[in-house]
Amino acid sequence: MKKVVVIGGGTGSFVVLSGLKKYPLEISAIITMTDSGGSTGKLRDQYGVLPPGDVRQALIALSESEETWRELFLYRFTSGDFEGHNFGNIFLSVLERVTGSFESSIKKAEEILKTKGKVIPVTLSNANINAELATGEIIKTEALIDKMEKRPRIKRLFLEKEVKANRRAVEAINNADYIIVAPGDVFTSIIPNFLFPQITAAYKKNKGKKILIMNLMNKLGQTDNFKTSDYLKAYQSILGANPFDYLLLNTSRLPSKVTSKYSEFGEKEVENDLRQNLRLKLEPGDFVNSKLFAPEKGDKLFNRSLVRHDEAKLARHIWNNIINK
Amino acid sequence: MKKVVVIGGGTGSFVVLSGLKKYPLEISAIITMTDSGGSTGKLRDQYGVLPPGDVRQALIALSESEETWRELFLYRFTSGDFEGHNFGNIFLSVLERVTGSFESSIKKAEEILKTKGKVIPVTLSNANINAELATGEIIKTEALIDKMEKRPRIKRLFLEKEVKANRRAVEAINNADYIIVAPGDVFTSIIPNFLFPQITAAYKKNKGKKILIMNLMNKLGQTDNFKTSDYLKAYQSILGANPFDYLLLNTSRLPSKVTSKYSEFGEKEVENDLRQNLRLKLEPGDFVNSKLFAPEKGDKLFNRSLVRHDEAKLARHIWNNIINK
Repeated sequence: MKKVVVIGGGTGSFVVLSGLKKYPLEISAIITMTDSGGSTGKLRDQYGVLPPGDVRQALIALSESEETWRELFLYRFTSGDFEGHNFGNIFLSVLERVTGSFESSIKKAEEILKTKGKVIPVTLSNANINAELATGEIIKTEALIDKMEKRPRIKRLFLEKEVKANRRAVEAINNADYIIVAPGDVFTSIIPNFLFPQITAAYKKNKGKKILIMNLMNKLGQTDNFKTSDYLKAYQSILGANPFDYLLLNTSRLPSKVTSKYSEFGEKEVENDLRQNLRLKLEPGDFVNSKLFAPEKGDKLFNRSLVRHDEAKLARHIWNNIINK
Repeated sequence: MKKVVVIGGGTGSFVVLSGLKKYPLEISAIITMTDSGGSTGKLRDQYGVLPPGDVRQALIALSESEETWRELFLYRFTSGDFEGHNFGNIFLSVLERVTGSFESSIKKAEEILKTKGKVIPVTLSNANINAELATGEIIKTEALIDKMEKRPRIKRLFLEKEVKANRRAVEAINNADYIIVAPGDVFTSIIPNFLFPQITAAYKKNKGKKILIMNLMNKLGQTDNFKTSDYLKAYQSILGANPFDYLLLNTSRLPSKVTSKYSEFGEKEVENDLRQNLRLKLEPGDFVNSKLFAPEKGDKLFNRSLVRHDEAKLARHIWNNIINK
């Protein structure tokens, strides 16, 4: 079985992993560990645990257990003492406290959720990111970088304090036949994985095929007015001149009621200004989920993910046109 | 295999079940469902769930899973958003919300915890108890009845609103070869099970052997100055003239530092004033755990259970001298 590594965090990874698990692949999900907002941020602050939120989503995505367990891990309290908290996050945090290790807590959750594949936090240390803006201003913490507001371009992202990457994440990349960089918030979900020199070095060294799934929408305060070439440049600055072999690019039209909703926030669809070339194969297609996603009650973090990639369309394309071609 | 039913709730049931699970018995734990204090009370109030606390303890007692799961279900938060809450309680409550039924949530927990035997809530309806004191005063809610304060004797306990017993609890009693009434707070853990006429009727009709494990200490505000005959009378008033075939009675001396600690609260050891007779066989013995129990951090409910029955001594005696005689 081919070994596939998916790098990312949040909803983007969730969609990619949910689709890929239906194919005969050995999947490793490398997950960003710098989330500091919402339920996850509170758990980090109050209980000194590692951020569970993105890991939880990946676990659910890879789960092949009966529905109840997945619902349990998705459950969010909308009132009372636990308002805004997610049960899966609480579960992982308590398991981390009980077992003394975040990896053990993931292993237990993998058992319950019967995950097809492994969920690997990019680091097992307490990590935080800072962003330097074009003006030189520094924004501290992921929660603030993730805040949607007009601001100068992000010039540079860095770890507040250097910490080591998870050895298992490096190994997974070393052994991968395919590496997929998931869609998602570039500066808060994806690039934070590449701030670890061991991860970046392993990525560059890997001789497998590398695939970027291009975002559908730009994000206020992070990728305002980005075209596909801007995304590519952001990755090139970290991963070298030719970071990807394939670029999956949605070419189907988004419903106008979606684009108009986004434009209220000054956010636009990602426009393509890249051409096919020998080094980077563009893979256009319809990759959009026709369902619109309502904001999740009680969750401020995802309350605008109205449009998402379609897990089945993405996975089918990757399987038919790239892996099993 | 002989069928044993243990009726009770709280720490008393925990000890009895923990000991019995090591013997070749088919165990059903019938658990009181009127707790309204602490973590359990808050969950009931805020999330409209059934009281998880006593059920959780019984599940852990019967668990044969690896240590981690049991630790998880015992875990109590001592700070932050979840201060005073117990993870197992949260788990059961969320499962109840997700599955829509408390019984399903217990079934899932039984799977994870690999329980040897069944945990059966005495009712699946929202139930609350009231107590009428000798003065005619009515104390509402279990939490207030459980409050340790000097007060007139409790004359009568009743369900605030009539609700049905759990059919499975009635069936378990119907089929039992042995029924054990656990030690514990008589008016807040044990008798609340017998406020359901279907339970009491099944108990009286059952032709198996019935065993009462006598409490070690009296409890302020509930059983002040009770002797063994007073306990028996309390049960006789509900269960008829001959409610038990055996009465397990600790005759070993409690450490003086324990008894002096209790006496600070005006609580004394239970004194025996019953004699052997044909209808009730007294079973004296050393049933005390030589370990003293420190108050559980963050838990107001159990913070004085300094001395407890010993699970191994109790179970061995029941097995050797009663069941397998």
